[in-house]
Amino acid sequence: MRRNDVEKTPLTLLGLGAMGTALARAWLAAGHPLTVWNRDPARAAALAAEGATVAGSAAEAVAANTLVVVCLLDDASVGEVLAGTGLEGKDVVNLTTSTPAQARTRADRARERGARYLDGGIMAVPPMIGVPDAGGYVFYSGSRELFDRHREALRVPAGTTYVGADAGFAALYDVALLSAMYGMFAGAAHAFALIRKEDIDPGTLAPLLADWLVAMAPSVHQTAGHLRSGDYTEGVVSGLAMQVAGTPTFLLTAEQQGVSTELLSPYFALMRRRLSETGGGEEGLTGVIDLLTN
Amino acid sequence: MRRNDVEKTPLTLLGLGAMGTALARAWLAAGHPLTVWNRDPARAAALAAEGATVAGSAAEAVAANTLVVVCLLDDASVGEVLAGTGLEGKDVVNLTTSTPAQARTRADRARERGARYLDGGIMAVPPMIGVPDAGGYVFYSGSRELFDRHREALRVPAGTTYVGADAGFAALYDVALLSAMYGMFAGAAHAFALIRKEDIDPGTLAPLLADWLVAMAPSVHQTAGHLRSGDYTEGVVSGLAMQVAGTPTFLLTAEQQGVSTELLSPYFALMRRRLSETGGGEEGLTGVIDLLTN
Repeated sequence: MRRNDVEKTPLTLLGLGAMGTALARAWLAAGHPLTVWNRDPARAAALAAEGATVAGSAAEAVAANTLVVVCLLDDASVGEVLAGTGLEGKDVVNLTTSTPAQARTRADRARERGARYLDGGIMAVPPMIGVPDAGGYVFYSGSRELFDRHREALRVPAGTTYVGADAGFAALYDVALLSAMYGMFAGAAHAFALIRKEDIDPGTLAPLLADWLVAMAPSVHQTAGHLRSGDYTEGVVSGLAMQVAGTPTFLLTAEQQGVSTELLSPYFALMRRRLSETGGGEEGLTGVIDLLTN
Repeated sequence: MRRNDVEKTPLTLLGLGAMGTALARAWLAAGHPLTVWNRDPARAAALAAEGATVAGSAAEAVAANTLVVVCLLDDASVGEVLAGTGLEGKDVVNLTTSTPAQARTRADRARERGARYLDGGIMAVPPMIGVPDAGGYVFYSGSRELFDRHREALRVPAGTTYVGADAGFAALYDVALLSAMYGMFAGAAHAFALIRKEDIDPGTLAPLLADWLVAMAPSVHQTAGHLRSGDYTEGVVSGLAMQVAGTPTFLLTAEQQGVSTELLSPYFALMRRRLSETGGGEEGLTGVIDLLTN
C-alpha cells in the first residue's frame, strides 16, 4: 500500500452495476481503500484485480468501513441489502435512484438503526464518473455532518452540490432536472419529426436547434421570479394571449407535415386553459405551473 | 434628407403590429426611406413623426417601392391585403407567421402575379429587433436572388439565415425551433411544479435547471447523427431499456408531490412503445421520432 493510500478515507461500496463500477474505479484510481460487494460476484472479481477488497456478504462489506456507499438497482434493493447489516455508527450514502419519499423513509430507517444518512442524486452517466471536466455532479441532501466529514471522498467521482437537510431534496432536484430534460427531448423529437419528409439534413437543423434551446433555457430565471413574486407579468414580452393565438400555426404545421401532435398538445391545452380561466393575456407562461399542482 | 439616406434601399412595410412597428423603427433608425401602411391608421401616424411616409392604402404603399415587406396578423390577412395591389416586378418579403404550406401557396400566388417572393420566420420578440447583440435572427427561404439583392436592408432588423429555395422552409425551421422550445418550457414547468410544496426557493432551482438544460441541449447533434445513419445506437451511453426502467421513479415522484403527469407521460409512453415494438434496448431515444411521423 502506497503511503498516500493510508491517508485516504477507506470506504465500502454496495452495488456494482454500470454506475457502481464507475464509482469503484474512480475511488480506486484516487487511492481510496475500497471494499466492494455485489449480488453477482463476477463483477466484484474484476474490481479485485484493480485493488478492491471483495466482501463475501453485504454485512461483511458494511462491517469493514464507517463510510458505506450504496448504489443498487432500486429502493427495494436497498431495503433488502441493508436489512441484514450492522448500521450502528455508520455513515450511509445512498446513491440509488429513488423518489424523495423513498429517500426520506430510507433516512428515517437509517437513523433508527444508529446511522447517519446522506442521499445522493447522480447527474451524470457512468462515463462521466471520475472525469473532472465531464461536468457531472451529484446532488446531496440529508446529514450535513456526514457530507462535510466525507467531502474529500465524495468529490472523487463527480462534483458535489448539497441541497439541504431534507433527505428527499437530492432526489427531488434530480427528478426535477431530468423531467425537464425529457420535456426538452420531447420538443426536439417533434422538431426533427417535422423535417422528416423534407429534403433537409437533420445535421443542418441540429446546431440551430441546440443554439435556440441554449438561448431559451435562461427563461427559467424569469419563471422563478414570477413564482417568488406572484406577479406572472414581470418582464413578459410575449404574453399568454399572443402565444395562445400562435398555437394553431404549430398544430397545423404538424398536421401538414404528417406529425402527431401528442407531444405538443398537452402544453398548449394548459396554455389555453390558463388563459380562459384567468383572462391573464399579459401573463407569461408561468401560470401553467399552477394548473399542474393540485 | 441626409446623404446616406439616399444610398439606403427604400422599402414598404405593410402591417404595424408590435413586430411591424419594431421593424419600421429599425429601418428608419438605419436611414432607410420607409413607406408604411396599417389597417388602423393610428399606428402609422406615430411612425410618420419618426420619418415614415404613410400610404393611404395598401395598393399605394406597394406602388411606392420595389421592396415590399409584409408583417400582418396571419396568412389570411396577407391574402386580403395583397389582393388589391400591383405586385408585378415587386420583391415581396413575407414575415407574417405562417405554416410551410401557407408560405408555399403565397410564393406561388406572388410568382403568378410577376413578383419575386421570400418568406421569413422571425426568431425574435419585438424588443430584440434592431438590437444587433440581442441574438435575434430571421430564417429566410424562397428567392435567393431577392435575398442577395436586399441583404443589406434585410440584416437591419436582425441577423439573417437563408435556409433554401423552398419558400416553406423558413416557416418550417421557425415552427420546429419554437415547438422544441415549448417542449423545454413544458419540462421546466413540470420541474417547478415538483418543488412547489417544498421549502425550496424557485430561484435556487432555476440556475441548476438552466445549466442542466444547456448541458443537455447538444444531445440533438447525436439525434441528427442517428437520423442520418439510421443507427440509433451510435454513441449511446444510457440505452432505451435503462431509461424506460427509470420512468416509474419520475411518475411516482410527480404523484407524491401532487403534480399532474400530463406533460411527462406522452413522451414516456412513446419511449415504452418504441422499446416494446423494437426491443431496441441499446438504442437511444431517437426511435421516438419514428413513432411521431405517419
